[in-house]
Amino acid sequence: MASLTPQPYKGARDFYPEDKRLQNYIFDTWKRVVERYGYEEYGAPLLEPYEIYAAKTGQEIVNEQTYTFTDRGGRNVVIRPEMTPSISRMVAGQRQELSYPARLYSIANFLRYERPQKGREREFWQLNADIFGVEGVEADAEIITLASEIMKAFGAKDSMYKIRINSRKLINVMMADYLELDVMQAQLMIKLFDRKDKISHEEFRDQAAEVFDEDQAKKGLQKIAHLLSAKTMGELPESLLGTDAVKEVRDLFTLLREQGITNAVFDISLMRGFDYYTGIVFEVFDTHPDNNRAMFGGGRYDGLVGLFGVEPIATVGFAPGQTMTEEFLKSHDLIPKLRSTTDIWMIVLHPDALPGAQKLATALRKEKVTVAVDISGRKLDKQMKAAIKSGVPYMLFVGENELRDEVYSLKEIATEKEQKLSFERVVTTVIDHRHKRRSTL
Amino acid sequence: MASLTPQPYKGARDFYPEDKRLQNYIFDTWKRVVERYGYEEYGAPLLEPYEIYAAKTGQEIVNEQTYTFTDRGGRNVVIRPEMTPSISRMVAGQRQELSYPARLYSIANFLRYERPQKGREREFWQLNADIFGVEGVEADAEIITLASEIMKAFGAKDSMYKIRINSRKLINVMMADYLELDVMQAQLMIKLFDRKDKISHEEFRDQAAEVFDEDQAKKGLQKIAHLLSAKTMGELPESLLGTDAVKEVRDLFTLLREQGITNAVFDISLMRGFDYYTGIVFEVFDTHPDNNRAMFGGGRYDGLVGLFGVEPIATVGFAPGQTMTEEFLKSHDLIPKLRSTTDIWMIVLHPDALPGAQKLATALRKEKVTVAVDISGRKLDKQMKAAIKSGVPYMLFVGENELRDEVYSLKEIATEKEQKLSFERVVTTVIDHRHKRRSTL
Repeated sequence: MASLTPQPYKGARDFYPEDKRLQNYIFDTWKRVVERYGYEEYGAPLLEPYEIYAAKTGQEIVNEQTYTFTDRGGRNVVIRPEMTPSISRMVAGQRQELSYPARLYSIANFLRYERPQKGREREFWQLNADIFGVEGVEADAEIITLASEIMKAFGAKDSMYKIRINSRKLINVMMADYLELDVMQAQLMIKLFDRKDKISHEEFRDQAAEVFDEDQAKKGLQKIAHLLSAKTMGELPESLLGTDAVKEVRDLFTLLREQGITNAVFDISLMRGFDYYTGIVFEVFDTHPDNNRAMFGGGRYDGLVGLFGVEPIATVGFAPGQTMTEEFLKSHDLIPKLRSTTDIWMIVLHPDALPGAQKLATALRKEKVTVAVDISGRKLDKQMKAAIKSGVPYMLFVGENELRDEVYSLKEIATEKEQKLSFERVVTTVIDHRHKRRSTL
Repeated sequence: MASLTPQPYKGARDFYPEDKRLQNYIFDTWKRVVERYGYEEYGAPLLEPYEIYAAKTGQEIVNEQTYTFTDRGGRNVVIRPEMTPSISRMVAGQRQELSYPARLYSIANFLRYERPQKGREREFWQLNADIFGVEGVEADAEIITLASEIMKAFGAKDSMYKIRINSRKLINVMMADYLELDVMQAQLMIKLFDRKDKISHEEFRDQAAEVFDEDQAKKGLQKIAHLLSAKTMGELPESLLGTDAVKEVRDLFTLLREQGITNAVFDISLMRGFDYYTGIVFEVFDTHPDNNRAMFGGGRYDGLVGLFGVEPIATVGFAPGQTMTEEFLKSHDLIPKLRSTTDIWMIVLHPDALPGAQKLATALRKEKVTVAVDISGRKLDKQMKAAIKSGVPYMLFVGENELRDEVYSLKEIATEKEQKLSFERVVTTVIDHRHKRRSTL
């Protein structure tokens, strides 16, 4: 038989312990921040019925990017490409049992069939945090604050990222009343705005012209130019300024200022790809010249829970991804030194000492020290080489003399410092070292 | 449009926060135990090429139970039904870079198309812990010790579970030399032994007779009866007793006794379903009369890494599942009281107090207190009802007077005890309570 390849599936990643440490650092940071704000963790199934995405997710994702198949029972299912439909379904399922505002989060993997590239994989991990049951813009402010707090928890300075904010309500008014587009035209225009940064200025203009009725195109393009030149809300066309949508965005900026957020900006061109948004939308944007792009976003989607046969519930949420976060941390040199979860690699000096070494390891573990015993029976130098290669901070040398005298040689691998220590001192030395490393994060 | 159903996909579970807390308790317990033994976490892709299961996983699983489909690029892929092939592939991919003994673990979800029933779901979560690079039975002893330590970490007494142990090497000798079966017959007999507890004694006997050549059946059945009557290794037929396989099992029991394990038993009828096992196999068995069944197992599979084009590596591993663990904990009344990760539901007495309440919440969060602010703008009684329903331990009442005086009313929901406290006392009261709850676990 030809041998199998050790390569992972295209667009998926193997997380060896070093990669997994970084992933865990990201997950733990997310967890810590959202739990501080009272968000509780949930879990959702990997597979969902096809219909729940067909309903409201963007067309491109459902038709071209989902992993859709028929199960052995003839059900048409999808490996979740995002969490929003699943959590909406779950909230609908316990609409009466939940307590509002309901704050929920999950950290989970998703699949989309896209061309793998920097910062984008077919299998990817996201935090999803959503607040249910608040109609007021206070909920939008909280979600945007959370997004910002997460960035800060990773060590980001305000200058390293920007929060772009817009409103679907304002977009709707702008499309219908200001640009005078019908529903179909508006939808095309929204998709075009969504692609704006990926195409040239000329392409954008030509494609925009095609959306308008022929006799409206010239005037329409002028209006779009006016819109895009507005750097603040105040520069928007007069007819938009008096709307409720604008008032809501203004209220939101006031709340964000109260939360100390100074790097949020209004951006009329921000659309967000998903069809389900109904109010405020936002995107967190990396300002680093090498990684100048949208990292993640979110917004309000008040209609989704209601698709599952219950009264709708006001909802705001967002979803940062692990890969984009990693790219951000790399660009800004914010990845901390992460060490192995194992404190000690125990070197067994002679096979006869193994039973005693195992007892010692058990005693250390009772004191919360993490110990890998070298049970290979190899010679001393081979055991030491393995310990050094493994990346653990300490080696502990244990032979029959050490067990008899109850004094052990502890060697810190990074400094090559070796000390003869009692059991108690081994414990305190190792635990202190672990805490010191943690507090420097 | 007809509304969508809020039901999850058949055989998959929605984990609402309460369910997720229990899942996290199980995951955290697994993590703590295996990390104490020096196991490091990894992550593997959800999808794998079909071929890696066709190679060595049991036929039934691959042909009837996998979620297999063709992706948009024409690749034949499987949603992982187990972790063993994936981690073998990953170890092969970094065979030179890893340090041996390599101890690796993951906690991940899997899918198998089976009939959902108590303790078995189509989507399920497992810990996988494996040790690579140790040929000696010390590795088998460590893995079985880990399995036992995990049970103890959940509060299990020795009498609540039993560890059944057998050896594939011994099974092979028994099939070939003692029962005189050829390779095909042996395979059928192994599958039959595997089903032994699920069928009647008569069915087992009749099907066993059919495996033998006709003229051998009578003698064969007598031999099987002899084998199954052996309650200890010493009662095995003479011809098996002198084999290396038996010596290895004896060495293993000595090591387990040294680790203080007293509830391990030899069981010649234990086979384990997967085709890849090559040495010691074991199963942890619930002894509770209401849940009297195998919970999980593991064993040695020295051949799997070698299928990926590299030199084989000795490997032992095991994989407890979340669902079976839950059933065990329920049967033995071992589920601890798990509380919300949120400490405080902040009741805002008047909308004008919201900005001040938010500032207070931010200050509490800096002290690691987890706070959900009621930003709904509802009346006091509605906010209080929501807080009580949510399951958080404390309500904190914040109005303009409280903010001015810097004294806040903290109410413990379970005891209805209400205290007027300074900021510092709110922090210490809540954090102390959280630690007290944790230490009773």
